[in-house]
Amino acid sequence: MPSITFLPGNHVCEVESGTALQSAAEQAGVNISFPCAGKGVCGKCIVKITSGSVAFEDNGKLPETLRRQGYVLTCRSKASDGNATVLLTSSLSEEKGQFTDALGCIGIEEELFPQQEDIKPLAAADRVTVAPPEQMDGLGDYDRFINAVSRDLLSKETDIPLNLLQKLPEELRLNDGELYVWHAKRLNTEYIVDISAAEPSGDYGLAIDIGTTTVVVLLADMASARAIDAVTLYNAQIDRGADVISRISYAKNPDRIREMRSLVLSTINRGISELTARNGNIPAHCIRNVSIAGNTTMTQLFMGIKPEYIRLDPYTPAVMGVPLYTAEALGLVINPCALIWFSPNVGSYVGGDITSGLLCTDFAVGTDEVCLFIDVGTNGEIVLGNNDFLMGCACSAGPAFEGGGIERGMRASEGAIERVEVDPVSGECSISVIGGGKPLGICGSGIISLLAQLFSADIIDRRGKLDRTGKFTSIKVSGKHARYYVTPAEGEDLGVYLTENDIDNFVRAKAAIFSACVTMLKSVSLDFSCITKFYIAGGFGKYIEIEKAQTLGLLPPLDKDRFYYIGNSSLAGAFMSLLSQKHRDKVEELANRITYVDLSVEPGYMDEYVAAMFLPHTDMSMFGKG
Amino acid sequence: MPSITFLPGNHVCEVESGTALQSAAEQAGVNISFPCAGKGVCGKCIVKITSGSVAFEDNGKLPETLRRQGYVLTCRSKASDGNATVLLTSSLSEEKGQFTDALGCIGIEEELFPQQEDIKPLAAADRVTVAPPEQMDGLGDYDRFINAVSRDLLSKETDIPLNLLQKLPEELRLNDGELYVWHAKRLNTEYIVDISAAEPSGDYGLAIDIGTTTVVVLLADMASARAIDAVTLYNAQIDRGADVISRISYAKNPDRIREMRSLVLSTINRGISELTARNGNIPAHCIRNVSIAGNTTMTQLFMGIKPEYIRLDPYTPAVMGVPLYTAEALGLVINPCALIWFSPNVGSYVGGDITSGLLCTDFAVGTDEVCLFIDVGTNGEIVLGNNDFLMGCACSAGPAFEGGGIERGMRASEGAIERVEVDPVSGECSISVIGGGKPLGICGSGIISLLAQLFSADIIDRRGKLDRTGKFTSIKVSGKHARYYVTPAEGEDLGVYLTENDIDNFVRAKAAIFSACVTMLKSVSLDFSCITKFYIAGGFGKYIEIEKAQTLGLLPPLDKDRFYYIGNSSLAGAFMSLLSQKHRDKVEELANRITYVDLSVEPGYMDEYVAAMFLPHTDMSMFGKG
Repeated sequence: MPSITFLPGNHVCEVESGTALQSAAEQAGVNISFPCAGKGVCGKCIVKITSGSVAFEDNGKLPETLRRQGYVLTCRSKASDGNATVLLTSSLSEEKGQFTDALGCIGIEEELFPQQEDIKPLAAADRVTVAPPEQMDGLGDYDRFINAVSRDLLSKETDIPLNLLQKLPEELRLNDGELYVWHAKRLNTEYIVDISAAEPSGDYGLAIDIGTTTVVVLLADMASARAIDAVTLYNAQIDRGADVISRISYAKNPDRIREMRSLVLSTINRGISELTARNGNIPAHCIRNVSIAGNTTMTQLFMGIKPEYIRLDPYTPAVMGVPLYTAEALGLVINPCALIWFSPNVGSYVGGDITSGLLCTDFAVGTDEVCLFIDVGTNGEIVLGNNDFLMGCACSAGPAFEGGGIERGMRASEGAIERVEVDPVSGECSISVIGGGKPLGICGSGIISLLAQLFSADIIDRRGKLDRTGKFTSIKVSGKHARYYVTPAEGEDLGVYLTENDIDNFVRAKAAIFSACVTMLKSVSLDFSCITKFYIAGGFGKYIEIEKAQTLGLLPPLDKDRFYYIGNSSLAGAFMSLLSQKHRDKVEELANRITYVDLSVEPGYMDEYVAAMFLPHTDMSMFGKG
Repeated sequence: MPSITFLPGNHVCEVESGTALQSAAEQAGVNISFPCAGKGVCGKCIVKITSGSVAFEDNGKLPETLRRQGYVLTCRSKASDGNATVLLTSSLSEEKGQFTDALGCIGIEEELFPQQEDIKPLAAADRVTVAPPEQMDGLGDYDRFINAVSRDLLSKETDIPLNLLQKLPEELRLNDGELYVWHAKRLNTEYIVDISAAEPSGDYGLAIDIGTTTVVVLLADMASARAIDAVTLYNAQIDRGADVISRISYAKNPDRIREMRSLVLSTINRGISELTARNGNIPAHCIRNVSIAGNTTMTQLFMGIKPEYIRLDPYTPAVMGVPLYTAEALGLVINPCALIWFSPNVGSYVGGDITSGLLCTDFAVGTDEVCLFIDVGTNGEIVLGNNDFLMGCACSAGPAFEGGGIERGMRASEGAIERVEVDPVSGECSISVIGGGKPLGICGSGIISLLAQLFSADIIDRRGKLDRTGKFTSIKVSGKHARYYVTPAEGEDLGVYLTENDIDNFVRAKAAIFSACVTMLKSVSLDFSCITKFYIAGGFGKYIEIEKAQTLGLLPPLDKDRFYYIGNSSLAGAFMSLLSQKHRDKVEELANRITYVDLSVEPGYMDEYVAAMFLPHTDMSMFGKG
């Protein structure tokens, strides 16, 4: 019986020849959706046959170019006599979370996702016929090639990278001068990115989110414009500092800059090799497009550029819009001539991750309604505006929301207490732990969950001080110090607890963010009530409970339906920029429109910050109390 | 007493403070010429002070820019109180052979050498003032830099290499945005090659002649447009084949191509490091211009391009005019952003070494008189023409002129018999040996010297057969075989001798070249008498005696004053192209004008070749006999 292997999960089943591929997928435990019930018209069940074959009964709905590259519709395919390998492809906009966590944390509203007519990667292939060599015509291979591409593809002559010139003579003779030529254009410059005499067996792209803490690499199939797989890795720079400021401090000399560059490159290249290996050993040279989003410091370190001036007055990044460089120059182990596109930075602390993220908001389609975008990670970045104005700022929230600066804090990974239930009478709590095992610490969402309930039950006061009446056994007081035990200390187990110092750190973090929002609003004479959509991006947003964050004064008291979680919008934006020229243009346009506000010199910010240092706020009227 | 060190020879002398630098040079045994007798007006005695200082009494004749870079005129300088290091610079056109053999083998007629107003390297520095960073102006360092260079230096925006972006933030802040910017232009593309906040302490260039046998690297000082030093090395590819055909055969797969590329790169980089080390440890990044001339195969192997199609019908090179690539891409260990300029190829066997060499002929200035250029090395290349027509061809002379294919043959290096005197009566000969020591073999000029005298004395006949009458004791006959002993065989010493087979190889080589010249001439209905200048390029030409070469029918019987030895014209042309835009334009124009003739398909060539297989020729009337 033929055996059908489904990638990337490597699920295998044996079926009779003639079995519907849909049934084979079910048998193999692979989840493919069929919105049009197998009529072959919606295209949602598209897959790629990477080895062997299946019997595909085409009804003309699948574009010829995709068919030729091995794509079929699952609903109209049957197992044939031999084995076959089926690569699942996934449209992120519709199949959130189906494959991996990294894909799962992306959510893109359907109307923001590139439409079929917008799909235009930076480098795409066209066919060209190069004239055959003739004796004594005075033309080398290069001349004939340039003549052909200048005539058929480009608006003017351009040079080609040495790598391509090296392969040109052979490729020209493999198929009598018939070539696929990947070419790209930016501003007035045109580029040749790859050539191939053979019909391309694969054309892949990468969207990369370079975060201070984690790096996500997403592998996309360019022919079908769909994400295939993604991987999340810790940025190997982490040991050199938890936040951008400490990374900048570390990267103080050329050796250190090279080291930091090499660390993040090794992280990304490891991600790429994992992705290519587990998706049918995709050859590196088939990856010809890359879109990167990272904050300003991460972008500069990735490029090997001294970051020091980012944090020195007048806080000037080296690059806002990054020029196109090749993968070879930048050090990515893919097709060496691939051109790397970066989401643009707008200031020292509002970088390409933020501009990229805006593609997941109504800013990308234009709106007269005022929207606020907030991305809270190690730093908090805020963009406020509508069609008339757009402003961005960053505040140093510190790492409290990621468990940093908290004695028993940790990131939201296995073993972290992510949520608690506090009994308002006894002050005792029950916990839920990521992974379900032994609690090892408490993460950001756990802290918010805990503090909001302690505050509501008057177990902490507005200044964040713990009750010292002695009526709550979970609170231990020792001189000036007090702690709340989430899990008890027993024997060698110190327990998981929160100190008043931890609470102070949390309050400073939430005050930084809240006051930044208030300052931005006041600078344009608005208040929170004007905001129709409040976007929360980043891992932070996904797990917090809005009411509890409002209780603590971290989020303003708006109707819950005005809040939108948009997950890793930096990655999602990079993915859309990978696919679509329209989206690349849009993010560059948005970046140009954003006025970068430096809160440290903004009048009133310090007052707002101090006012926000109470729970929920000094001005209780902002939270419907008072 | 202050000590004065003269580079590159490292000659040192100690002199009283106040001693004329001219006297110090004499005392140190350094030869500097003073055509204007010390009036400080001709500028020929220009030198550069690379450390310490001398007292220079300027009279306004030395351009300010050169003064600022440390140049002085020897005739107007005196030793000061401290030590000084003086770097001699040399104009090749005037000081042939003064410094090294490699420089010495260049001869450029003064009117062909770039005039002061022509001096324009591909990349030259201009000053630019970049606006200071301002808080929240939305501009990164890169934006401000591009704005400044677009406004002041370039005709439009351009990108910069990653290497430069990496150093930009630091350089911008070293001198308040004042920058020296090296920039280049070719066709419609503009390039930024280097930036420096500090006044450049040195700006050097390389002219490189990549020969099949030897590689010459010449170091030039770009500020004074003079050659400083040069080094000749064997091309490390030599063990992989003596001529281009065997190199092409060897480089048959990607690994072999990489190996060949790496071999020639290691040769060149070794030459560069020798030159920089012995000229005051010039930093590699100060070398910002390179001009290369090599034959088509050498050019492709240097670039890592498969050479196979050069020798397969229809004999198509990969590149004629080579695009500009960076030193980093090509693998030269100099400033990574330096752009490498190549003399253009015109066909499979007429390459950049030939087009470059034409800059040393009247072709470069234009002439109505018919000139013939011949470069004999392993191959023979010929260019014939005037203002009305220009044609080039190559013939496979084989290695006989370099001692190859000759049993006791060798290159013209130490131990080679380079000239002989034959007693026409006894048939015995006396010899002169390069280096004066024990004879190890015989080189091309020695063979010509010997054969011409043997032929004149009727010791060999017109077919190249040795006298078998037994009257010459230097001739040993053994069955069908005969040899002429130049030095006797004694004990273990086999002696240096020439076999009839050796003579056959020589005759084939001279026949190939002579018949190629005749074929070219006949194709335009001319004969040798029309040639007013007969240029002989290459190491070959330097040592041969014209009358003897005419006796053998290697050179036509023209008046001796129509022959011009132009030495290593490939290197000399590369040097002029390094210095002057006019010369780069000229060599490209000449390359475009040359019609490449493939002798193997040219009617009549085989007949001419067979006719030239006699000494001096079948048609004795061509040599004034008959």
